[in-house]
Amino acid sequence: MPWPFARLYTQRVTSAKRFVIIGADAAGMSAAMEARRADPKLRITAFDRGVAASYSQCGLPYWLGGVIASRERLVARTVEDFRARDVDVRLRHEVTAIDTARGVVRVRDLGGGREFDEPYDRLLVATGASPVEFPLPGRDLPGVFTLDVLEDADAIRAYLREHAPRRAVIVGGGYVGLELAENFTRLGLSVSLVQRGDQVFHSVDAELAAPLHEELERHGVDLNLSDSLVKACSGSGGRVRQVTTTQGDLDADLVVLATGVKPNVDLAVNAGIPFGPTGALAVDDRMRTGVQGVYAAGDCAEHFHRVLGKPVWIPLGTTANKQGRVAGRNVTGGDARFAGIVATAVAKVFDLGVARTGLNEWEARAAGLDVRTVVLDSTDQAGYMPDAEDLTVKLVVERATGRLLGGQAVGRRGADKRVDVLATALYAGLTVSQLPELDLAYSPPFNSVWDPVQVAAVKLTRGS
Amino acid sequence: MPWPFARLYTQRVTSAKRFVIIGADAAGMSAAMEARRADPKLRITAFDRGVAASYSQCGLPYWLGGVIASRERLVARTVEDFRARDVDVRLRHEVTAIDTARGVVRVRDLGGGREFDEPYDRLLVATGASPVEFPLPGRDLPGVFTLDVLEDADAIRAYLREHAPRRAVIVGGGYVGLELAENFTRLGLSVSLVQRGDQVFHSVDAELAAPLHEELERHGVDLNLSDSLVKACSGSGGRVRQVTTTQGDLDADLVVLATGVKPNVDLAVNAGIPFGPTGALAVDDRMRTGVQGVYAAGDCAEHFHRVLGKPVWIPLGTTANKQGRVAGRNVTGGDARFAGIVATAVAKVFDLGVARTGLNEWEARAAGLDVRTVVLDSTDQAGYMPDAEDLTVKLVVERATGRLLGGQAVGRRGADKRVDVLATALYAGLTVSQLPELDLAYSPPFNSVWDPVQVAAVKLTRGS
Repeated sequence: MPWPFARLYTQRVTSAKRFVIIGADAAGMSAAMEARRADPKLRITAFDRGVAASYSQCGLPYWLGGVIASRERLVARTVEDFRARDVDVRLRHEVTAIDTARGVVRVRDLGGGREFDEPYDRLLVATGASPVEFPLPGRDLPGVFTLDVLEDADAIRAYLREHAPRRAVIVGGGYVGLELAENFTRLGLSVSLVQRGDQVFHSVDAELAAPLHEELERHGVDLNLSDSLVKACSGSGGRVRQVTTTQGDLDADLVVLATGVKPNVDLAVNAGIPFGPTGALAVDDRMRTGVQGVYAAGDCAEHFHRVLGKPVWIPLGTTANKQGRVAGRNVTGGDARFAGIVATAVAKVFDLGVARTGLNEWEARAAGLDVRTVVLDSTDQAGYMPDAEDLTVKLVVERATGRLLGGQAVGRRGADKRVDVLATALYAGLTVSQLPELDLAYSPPFNSVWDPVQVAAVKLTRGS
Repeated sequence: MPWPFARLYTQRVTSAKRFVIIGADAAGMSAAMEARRADPKLRITAFDRGVAASYSQCGLPYWLGGVIASRERLVARTVEDFRARDVDVRLRHEVTAIDTARGVVRVRDLGGGREFDEPYDRLLVATGASPVEFPLPGRDLPGVFTLDVLEDADAIRAYLREHAPRRAVIVGGGYVGLELAENFTRLGLSVSLVQRGDQVFHSVDAELAAPLHEELERHGVDLNLSDSLVKACSGSGGRVRQVTTTQGDLDADLVVLATGVKPNVDLAVNAGIPFGPTGALAVDDRMRTGVQGVYAAGDCAEHFHRVLGKPVWIPLGTTANKQGRVAGRNVTGGDARFAGIVATAVAKVFDLGVARTGLNEWEARAAGLDVRTVVLDSTDQAGYMPDAEDLTVKLVVERATGRLLGGQAVGRRGADKRVDVLATALYAGLTVSQLPELDLAYSPPFNSVWDPVQVAAVKLTRGS
């Protein structure tokens, strides 16, 4: 991948003794564990302003909905677990400045208020992402939330318990919005979803989003597309009671703003660590930033897109884990490379799974690619099996070369499987004409004799 | 792939007018449809001694068990459907001889008894496979069956209806035996399974078979391993009443011999069409046999194994469809190639799915490969999700190169998904160190942030 900072690395330092990590979640703690494996003597310290390390952010909607019974189950490893591996995790400690010239970070203990300098030989910026905020009258009303970190989920759970809201308005139809719609419905709330665009989950094309709209409405979600929030208003008690959107008013005892996230880069950028065209921190495939000794990984960093051949910013836990591992190996003198992403994603929307990988049609066209596409309505099992469920698959290929660019699937079962096959095919750079050659597992309860992805590929091949 | 017969193809005939197919099932009818697409004028005639064309053999156990309500659902295309595409399918017509010198096949109408010669320019041998028979006292008793073609299922259903058997003995623990055990149990029969080896489904290693044994016993199947059938005995009425195995006697109102199949090659071999070391018909990657103008595909032909780099014989519907398509394209002057198999398979055993691809450990060792393996006990969803199900994954890699040789999985959900990813990786020739780089779909209801296959791969990588 292109890398403008190579000149900085003429002198390679190989004797790191102190590894400091800013941000103790997926990327940071993957790096810590990987570094520990490689170097038993390295001093590893991770600072995090939050209250928990290494928990599953993706599990938060399910914890809110009561699917996951206990908060502890979300935490993969506790501070004590890390201590047992000789990794020092300091929660409620915020890094307020990075001095790359001196090789120190300035840390504030959010508990005691004490400030101190922590020196490093290698630094990993793993500061993650935070919800995008926009000016909204009523944003600060009690009952108006974002869902980002564990503390946010704690606050929403407390609010649910204390005020027993009955009507929730969710703003944003991405992962978090969709998962919250399901989980709030599970709790018995009436849910309205307000989505600025004309479809939810815009990382799939319209044909794949249509079943999601039906599924949301089938479960009683009041779906407001091409709509956006104007203000939130309070009722008696000073808590949120109603929101106004561009299309009218909606009752709301609880509002969650889930309109997307932005990379947390201010700390790094203030220290002169370069960001890329996406606004996230520029990194090479070794997770090195433009400043020697400083690495970045996870939601604050850019992610090389194998299909586009350039960095993008698609913050996901899977990628954070991968980049963290690469960084952790390299700070200990290793030479690991991040292979890049193919932009795979899956979401559950009530009883449907929707998944995608690579480029969808509009992304491919936006990238200037001349594409051909096919949409196939099929089933997850052999069509004659009584439990066979509808499964819709879409493929996007480059017209001239037949190169597979991306795939999408939606259905009650098996969308994730087909997209994982396509993600593997994308990683390997297969063409659409190779998909029918794949030797996929067949037995009537698991698939048709030709997987729907293969049937779609044959249709594309024949049509050319 | 190695191909000894190339010398025969110096003169290439390109103006085929008459395409004759022996065997009107997966391979044969895939070839017919593909040939019809490529050449609207070709005269296509398929002979089959059976009573139905193009039905799902793999669906038969589920039709017996009542899962599939109607026999018609098993039939993908009827004779009338083929006629509408100008493909002439003659059921109950047996080809009794092939004269490759004259380019004719001898056909007997099993209905009227008439015999006639049918000339061809191109011939496809798609005669499939048949159950292996062994000398067994009592083999011919009423109530002793094999399950191969639709007529066998018809006969078993008639027997179930007329004699209401209560105790079934299934001999053989491969796909058919396992699927019958489930489906007979569903019908309320007591089921004993007699398996010669010390595990069922021997295309997975012992660690993966152990959960299958538990699952069978959990559902009340009387599992008799390291046992084999000696004789079947009749009771009053002359029907089967008991079997004797090497370990004792078992009551049996119904016996199904499911001890494997052999390729139906006699017709072809008698005509001088060469078979290969596996005993099936030797074909090149264009599905050409050693006789000019004669093709073979499906269960009667050999199958090139991409991992082993040589022909094997693994009869499966998926492969038959692929090979049939290749043959159908080539008889019309095309140049399609069969890419080979990676020996992927999946079976449902009550509530478990078990799947495999590539080489299992003993197959790899038998092939003289120096391997490393890992077995990982994991879950199909994020471990903290309450519905997460156990999933066990095994990987086999070549020690020196890290080349992925094969993978296996067993669990109530998601074994098929992991094996399809591995099958795609095998097709693409990935190494085990590339598996953790795959960008697979993650969300707590669908997977862990690292797919179990990736965790297994990391374990293997670290252990080296």
